[in-house]
Amino acid sequence: MYLNLCFLYSVISKLLDPQSAAIVGASPKPGTVGYVLLENLATRFKGRAYPVNPKYDVVELWGRKIKFYKSLLEVEDDIDVAVIATPAPTVPKILEEAGQKGIKAAVVISSGFAEAGNVELENWVKAVAKQYGIRLLGPNCIGVYNAYTNFDTQFLPVERAGRPPPGPIALISQSGAVATAIMDWAARRRLGMGFVVNYGNKADVTEVELLEAFAEDERVKVITMYMEGLKYPGEAKRLLDTVRRIAPKKPIVVYKAGRGSTAAQRAVRSHTAAMAGTYEMYHGLFKQAGAIEASSVREMFDMAKALATQPTPRGPRVLVVTDSGGMGVQAVDALEALGLEVPEVPESIAKELKRELLPFAAVSNPIDVTGSATDEHYKIVLDMLLPTAFFDMALVVTLMQVPGLTKNLAEYIIGAKKYGKPIVAVNFGGSELVQKFEEALEDSGVPTYPTPERAAKALWALYRYSQVRRRL
Amino acid sequence: MYLNLCFLYSVISKLLDPQSAAIVGASPKPGTVGYVLLENLATRFKGRAYPVNPKYDVVELWGRKIKFYKSLLEVEDDIDVAVIATPAPTVPKILEEAGQKGIKAAVVISSGFAEAGNVELENWVKAVAKQYGIRLLGPNCIGVYNAYTNFDTQFLPVERAGRPPPGPIALISQSGAVATAIMDWAARRRLGMGFVVNYGNKADVTEVELLEAFAEDERVKVITMYMEGLKYPGEAKRLLDTVRRIAPKKPIVVYKAGRGSTAAQRAVRSHTAAMAGTYEMYHGLFKQAGAIEASSVREMFDMAKALATQPTPRGPRVLVVTDSGGMGVQAVDALEALGLEVPEVPESIAKELKRELLPFAAVSNPIDVTGSATDEHYKIVLDMLLPTAFFDMALVVTLMQVPGLTKNLAEYIIGAKKYGKPIVAVNFGGSELVQKFEEALEDSGVPTYPTPERAAKALWALYRYSQVRRRL
Repeated sequence: MYLNLCFLYSVISKLLDPQSAAIVGASPKPGTVGYVLLENLATRFKGRAYPVNPKYDVVELWGRKIKFYKSLLEVEDDIDVAVIATPAPTVPKILEEAGQKGIKAAVVISSGFAEAGNVELENWVKAVAKQYGIRLLGPNCIGVYNAYTNFDTQFLPVERAGRPPPGPIALISQSGAVATAIMDWAARRRLGMGFVVNYGNKADVTEVELLEAFAEDERVKVITMYMEGLKYPGEAKRLLDTVRRIAPKKPIVVYKAGRGSTAAQRAVRSHTAAMAGTYEMYHGLFKQAGAIEASSVREMFDMAKALATQPTPRGPRVLVVTDSGGMGVQAVDALEALGLEVPEVPESIAKELKRELLPFAAVSNPIDVTGSATDEHYKIVLDMLLPTAFFDMALVVTLMQVPGLTKNLAEYIIGAKKYGKPIVAVNFGGSELVQKFEEALEDSGVPTYPTPERAAKALWALYRYSQVRRRL
Repeated sequence: MYLNLCFLYSVISKLLDPQSAAIVGASPKPGTVGYVLLENLATRFKGRAYPVNPKYDVVELWGRKIKFYKSLLEVEDDIDVAVIATPAPTVPKILEEAGQKGIKAAVVISSGFAEAGNVELENWVKAVAKQYGIRLLGPNCIGVYNAYTNFDTQFLPVERAGRPPPGPIALISQSGAVATAIMDWAARRRLGMGFVVNYGNKADVTEVELLEAFAEDERVKVITMYMEGLKYPGEAKRLLDTVRRIAPKKPIVVYKAGRGSTAAQRAVRSHTAAMAGTYEMYHGLFKQAGAIEASSVREMFDMAKALATQPTPRGPRVLVVTDSGGMGVQAVDALEALGLEVPEVPESIAKELKRELLPFAAVSNPIDVTGSATDEHYKIVLDMLLPTAFFDMALVVTLMQVPGLTKNLAEYIIGAKKYGKPIVAVNFGGSELVQKFEEALEDSGVPTYPTPERAAKALWALYRYSQVRRRL
């Protein structure tokens, strides 16, 4: 059994990270799905790419000659994955050829299967895959984006849909369009996402297996999941067991869409033919298993960013440092609403702080260095308080609009990482200084957020994860 | 009494929208507060500016000769507002000169009053202002930003803290730094904010009077308020009465910071010496009076943007159109959680839609035109459903990453405004197409949001406002 599982995982990791790929349905005609796939794999993929299309022989593209194969069987080299983007009725035959060629993994992009009412065709495809021992992702999916090798079966051109840089976050998405939009958004924000997978109709490879594969991949530090609903009996139990096993080792952040009543159920059903189930059921399942639940796509990545870069806190006590009293108040509101603590600064330390900061600074928690603060004031507070046993993490508000702050402040905040406690920052505004400052922090592993509420939720996720680690 | 009130309001509107201003403490030295104020008012203000500083005579600045006056009394022309940025102890004497000169309004930027423990000095300033009938904003404030005339007493340079373009939103902020950060953020997003006022220690002019002034100004379509707490006995009652009177005519959106327990109270007290009060008290007050409450600064502007541009809906029924089933599901979740309705499409219309849209489109509500949609599919849905009596507003999700959509879609959505019902859009991503599309919509008065949750909250605010209008 163990060997068998290992074998399965290694095929799935090949599906996610192949050395070679065939593109069946590759096309030299710009504007087609087959062209985008060919461009992705022939010009950016770090592995070997084999275009398959009987209509073409050798075509000059991107300044070089591209050879098209008549069929998979014509390719002489080994192929890790067959990417299939031909009309639905042709897929069973192509899969059969893949099987004969000894290919063990396929991504079926094509639509026109169960989602369009063609359940029998989908069952036929499943049967062929099973017969040849092919693990199949899809059909009706955007497949895989691997930022490390640019194995990329997303069929929208880069100009329209950006691709994120490599990084510690993996996404498993039930919705193709949501995955595409997330990638485009992450690309703009330089959010590192090593892997994005959309499994479409889930004829074979399931989200549970993808979870397992990412659990094993050391480049993945946080797994995010966008889910609408499960499909088959027994899946909830398997998901529960898998999350429970993985979560203590690697954080899993889940956003479950389709929470509401009839209209939400109707929407889920018509979208992925999945049953949304009562939201309470999923909520209970995630909580019990140790997944961290987000209440929106954005929040999922706010949390993932912190989980991927910050150490696990030892407790719920947050130090708040701010140059805006108003932002400090908002931070405390948000932290307390989430059940985190904002304890007072012990009197002896407060006295010492009083000497070092401006006379009108507030030296209790939140510590308000005021709008007249300099970079050094933040350094003093962080160095004096973060190493003590009184605080488990820090939320640092830096409204850079005040006159005394410079980009050097980033170094001081990054420097405080040496105390081994989570630090998140809040920046708000739009000037170049704000943007540069944010980039400096993010590039050195200090996640930044535009509002105190979002930063607080990220700290909450870290604290929640510390409990998952402890409990399980 | 009526005449007296009118007189008061006209002085306050002069304070917010003067034709002429003196800058006491103006300085030719870059990097000082007096320099930024001088630069604001001498180079960008559309009215007349009179620098006052006995240390200087005529100085060449920005390629022209700037005359400095020795005192306010030396200026021969009439002055609407004295902007005072000299050390705190000098302020009473300067106010006295303003009074002798017949100036009726002053913005005192200087700090070092009650907020620093100098209560007597602040009382003295109040007494002088009262004696001469001067209405005084501050002290310890950033004062006024008027985007129409660039009357701008914000003392941070534009490079560090952006200024928003003119527009229908006014902000009354208890926190100076929060106001500054909001302006910088709004400037980047091109969010139109005609007026921003921070009242600092509130020695004289109060938030209630500012509310009254904005209620009267036709350029202001929505009033936003950032509050931490009230200060004096009887203020809650006055605020309640004022909001109740204004709200049915002009929407008021409030974000009250300082909601939590001891730590939040502590933070508010040390920040503005105000009592946070129980949050429940404020919540009850706002609800009763007809203010729309936001739960964060960002949400306040999400709502304000919709209230400033959209008609009042007749009911809670939302039409959801989407090209991503997943986003549709999220929208329904969010709408239903807020008590809005997502009714089914009547069968006869659904049949007709079925003929016009793609065969695998979902024609119930949410209507999923699918990732294969073209611009025209959105037009068909909006034209067929929005004019009917079945829907009161529309939430349109346009993930522009899908291949069939172009920037023309913006025109169709903007065109649907003719049905006189609120429309908000959801866009997510980062490519240039997404950004251009968003700008086109926003510039034509269709507010866009990056997540379905935020768009739903904006529709909720519109519905809530329709109830305020009806009820009061």
